[in-house]
Amino acid sequence: MAPIRNGRHLYLELPIGLPVPGKTTAYDNSRTIDLENVTLDGGILIKTLVFSIDPFIRGRMRAPNVNTHIPALQFGEPLSSYGVGKVLRSENSIFKPGDHVYGMIPCEEYIIARDTVRLTMIENKESLPWSVYVGVCGMPGQTAYYGWKEFSAAKEGEVAYVTAAAGPVGSTVVQLAKSDSCKVIASAGSDEKVAFVRSIGADVAFNYKTGDTNKTLEEEGPVNIYWDSVGGETLETALANSAVFGRFIECGMISQVSSVNTLYPIKNLWQVIAKQLKITGFICSSLHTKYSAEFYREIPRRVAEGEIKYLEDREYGLDKVGQALVDVLTGKNNGKKVIIVADD
Amino acid sequence: MAPIRNGRHLYLELPIGLPVPGKTTAYDNSRTIDLENVTLDGGILIKTLVFSIDPFIRGRMRAPNVNTHIPALQFGEPLSSYGVGKVLRSENSIFKPGDHVYGMIPCEEYIIARDTVRLTMIENKESLPWSVYVGVCGMPGQTAYYGWKEFSAAKEGEVAYVTAAAGPVGSTVVQLAKSDSCKVIASAGSDEKVAFVRSIGADVAFNYKTGDTNKTLEEEGPVNIYWDSVGGETLETALANSAVFGRFIECGMISQVSSVNTLYPIKNLWQVIAKQLKITGFICSSLHTKYSAEFYREIPRRVAEGEIKYLEDREYGLDKVGQALVDVLTGKNNGKKVIIVADD
Repeated sequence: MAPIRNGRHLYLELPIGLPVPGKTTAYDNSRTIDLENVTLDGGILIKTLVFSIDPFIRGRMRAPNVNTHIPALQFGEPLSSYGVGKVLRSENSIFKPGDHVYGMIPCEEYIIARDTVRLTMIENKESLPWSVYVGVCGMPGQTAYYGWKEFSAAKEGEVAYVTAAAGPVGSTVVQLAKSDSCKVIASAGSDEKVAFVRSIGADVAFNYKTGDTNKTLEEEGPVNIYWDSVGGETLETALANSAVFGRFIECGMISQVSSVNTLYPIKNLWQVIAKQLKITGFICSSLHTKYSAEFYREIPRRVAEGEIKYLEDREYGLDKVGQALVDVLTGKNNGKKVIIVADD
Repeated sequence: MAPIRNGRHLYLELPIGLPVPGKTTAYDNSRTIDLENVTLDGGILIKTLVFSIDPFIRGRMRAPNVNTHIPALQFGEPLSSYGVGKVLRSENSIFKPGDHVYGMIPCEEYIIARDTVRLTMIENKESLPWSVYVGVCGMPGQTAYYGWKEFSAAKEGEVAYVTAAAGPVGSTVVQLAKSDSCKVIASAGSDEKVAFVRSIGADVAFNYKTGDTNKTLEEEGPVNIYWDSVGGETLETALANSAVFGRFIECGMISQVSSVNTLYPIKNLWQVIAKQLKITGFICSSLHTKYSAEFYREIPRRVAEGEIKYLEDREYGLDKVGQALVDVLTGKNNGKKVIIVADD
């Protein structure tokens, strides 16, 4: 077989605020790969099926000397994110052709992985669409599940306020909170998203762009558990409307991610003392060892049974990655944004 | 015996920012009391020995409809705070003349207490000065002890940064942190305070008014445990210099207490996620049931043995209460501010 195209989406320049497709990132189809003959050096050759678009990708677009939990992306290299692929060839005893793997992958159609320690084999006994394994059955679902189990201390009848509630993390949190018999207040950024959030069980759902977050929390709160994916002014409003001994689970601050010059100043942190709050920030991977086995036992089954629902926003082809990321950062996606790269 | 003076310090007006002695609070010596004949109605007559000046008193000077963990003070009534008194007469089977009691008391020389449920008998086997029981052996010491035990999760060699470290809470925290083999960075607001903090074991002590907090934490951190009594800009600096999985124990935000119009806006709360921090606000009384028995078993003994040291700033007479409170709120005290009202 002759060499074929191996399209990639590259990281080119540090964005100021939002990334700019074609400038800070760009699709590159100049490379080819000979699938039958390319040297693997003990690694595996993977055909990418799904590439996940998540807000954290923007967090990795930063000066390399700014140290956080995840390394900065390198200029001229492909973006990377979670993905699902199919093993085409293997020189590694753990993987064989036809296996499906999940993990952090470069944004390329075909990948040679020599370090496979972070790739997880996916059995998919439930025959779910592969894309689900980067959504409700992947990192976002794990983020929701791990964070809720570890930090919510949910009690029956407590009020949980979930932000970005139509997204893959938020919508899973809404359903876990309902499973724990909480009253769920949920916000999202469009009427369509709000309808979805209501359909999965939120007791109170509102469009934060047209509704009044403070008034809603005043009427429906106080908030015992705040699931924060947005930060900024919404976090301040949640502080003002929290119950005594409230738990704030800090999962993301997307309102702050692309607004380096206009970081929202929180002025009521004294509520932390007055209301004896517990605010915990976490990264999914830190809780992976503790919870991943029960997550994979429980969540794909509940998804397959229709007990846990999800919303997916699909695009086709790695050339769409740049705009898809902007959409996710500005809330223009409608559910979990995934790039379908190839059929199985 | 003829009636004698029963001086009181009254709360008169809502202060804007700092209280103003003589205006928002004032000493009143117009009342008298007949100690032998005053009706007790089943209560006890207490002679006040010590009245404690703590920052929380300012927190109670607020509009009655602002709801926090502690009720607002009433205009025209005496201030109240923790104190120690001696029982002169009793119509209550639990207390007898000569007993010493500790608890929240009105700011008066003589008190008739009918509701005694919140008064604790003090044995004082160690014969410590009574004033110690509103300081290192009272609420401030309990605040330090309970908060440290419950939230620090201290491990040997970790870095603890303690603010307001010459005060009764901070200085106790410094010593508990050293007992747990932490490296202690401590800040205080005068060179005299810094010298005291160094004398009780702080590894690094600096005057935050003349030193550079950020530079010190950069050089001596990162901070695993942050004991916050000040909030505002110092909290922001601690967020910037925290270690991954840092614990922030939010005990007070004195920089914000009297600055209603200039609340410091915290701009780097995203560090909570990036560094996976746990920020916990607490009020001493919420942990009292869990820890008070071990506190009274352990701390007065360690104080008597000289193992735990404290600094005390004494004034004599309830007429000094107004200015003493301003001093505490502006850091002009040198150690635990107490008003000595009478000898035993």
